[in-house]
Amino acid sequence: MKKATIGILGGMGPEATASFFSMLVRLDRATSDQDHIHIIVDSDPSIPDRTKYLLEGGANPLPAMLASARRLLAAGADIAGMPCMTAHALLDQLRHNCTLHFLSAFEETGLAIRELSPPIRNLGVLATMGTRQAKLFETAFPDKNIIWPDEALHLSLVMEAIYGKRGIKAGYLGEEPKHLLLEAVGFLKKHGAEAIVAGCTEVPLVLSQKDLDMPFIDPMYYLANALIATSRKGVLER
Amino acid sequence: MKKATIGILGGMGPEATASFFSMLVRLDRATSDQDHIHIIVDSDPSIPDRTKYLLEGGANPLPAMLASARRLLAAGADIAGMPCMTAHALLDQLRHNCTLHFLSAFEETGLAIRELSPPIRNLGVLATMGTRQAKLFETAFPDKNIIWPDEALHLSLVMEAIYGKRGIKAGYLGEEPKHLLLEAVGFLKKHGAEAIVAGCTEVPLVLSQKDLDMPFIDPMYYLANALIATSRKGVLER
Repeated sequence: MKKATIGILGGMGPEATASFFSMLVRLDRATSDQDHIHIIVDSDPSIPDRTKYLLEGGANPLPAMLASARRLLAAGADIAGMPCMTAHALLDQLRHNCTLHFLSAFEETGLAIRELSPPIRNLGVLATMGTRQAKLFETAFPDKNIIWPDEALHLSLVMEAIYGKRGIKAGYLGEEPKHLLLEAVGFLKKHGAEAIVAGCTEVPLVLSQKDLDMPFIDPMYYLANALIATSRKGVLER
Repeated sequence: MKKATIGILGGMGPEATASFFSMLVRLDRATSDQDHIHIIVDSDPSIPDRTKYLLEGGANPLPAMLASARRLLAAGADIAGMPCMTAHALLDQLRHNCTLHFLSAFEETGLAIRELSPPIRNLGVLATMGTRQAKLFETAFPDKNIIWPDEALHLSLVMEAIYGKRGIKAGYLGEEPKHLLLEAVGFLKKHGAEAIVAGCTEVPLVLSQKDLDMPFIDPMYYLANALIATSRKGVLER
């Protein structure tokens, strides 16, 4: 039995992909190069924007995501994950249309949240408007109360931090997007949030646990650990 | 014309690969996900250790490196680089045995060093014993004076920092390997070094320009910039 090769269907965005790859390497404890897991990253930034597709009828990203999955399969990936929460709106279609075994960041985070002690009922979410409209969190966590900023604030704070001219996807990883997100956190806290979920992979590029006075849940951490545990169960040699 | 897809033949080691991928994304200036370059990373840590092969007649890493190059080609890479200096001892054989177009970290660094003002003649190098024995720096920079720690210090400081039980390849990225490398830098400076070259990709994981009072040359920076510039020249659509 060899460890399963992990594929990363990335590029959504590239910074979040690089950060997820680093997280995987760091969490994959090893004492020499050769003890590490084989990882293949396909960072194709030309995949059409997921939020534009979900909200405005922009180009469907599924064909490009399937092409990426095929590249990962061609290169030898056995299992895979996507460091993009919004893209999970297409996960079912992806699973139905290719043979690569995808783990879900929502499923893995759901399992982890269920284990939290004390239990948490009210989750404040920082995510794209695409993820919100697709009700990905409400569907994945039906027993939780999902708290969003009101729509105007969601646009002017969270979407601006992610997609703005001086936002994370434009390469600004400093104080500006962070302050916008912290303002949204203040709103979520006032409305009862007991924990904040980094519901978009760009969020932890500027915000971390030390910025918050309540639990900060990063789905990428749970996805990375699940990929590593699944890889270690092994696959038959081809 | 589309931008050429960049392949990273990685896993040597995984941390250095993750760091190189992050550097590429950061240097590839873009204002949205879709402006970025398509990058494919194959991080296969099972590639036999390059230094063991060069010094002790360990397993030849070339077949595994060629397999990785074939995976990158299968996934669509047009050009490629290796974030491992020691592996460059096999670059000629790699270039002769596969059609993937590899840029060389040594060649790109050589071009960059030639442009430095004031010009530098004496280069102190922190690298593996494999890179030293293969005379990669002496061959790449014939007009420079290459300064090494004496052999005992090379083993007890530089090799220990990279390969030791509490070294970088074992996952220790803190003060211990850094202090060993700084002691080696002190020796190189005393012997006339005017600049320090991070001659092993593990070195910049713990050492940076702010730790040194002379120029710190990271070949990965020049390799990354060369890959980006080459990618932007474009390739014909397939």
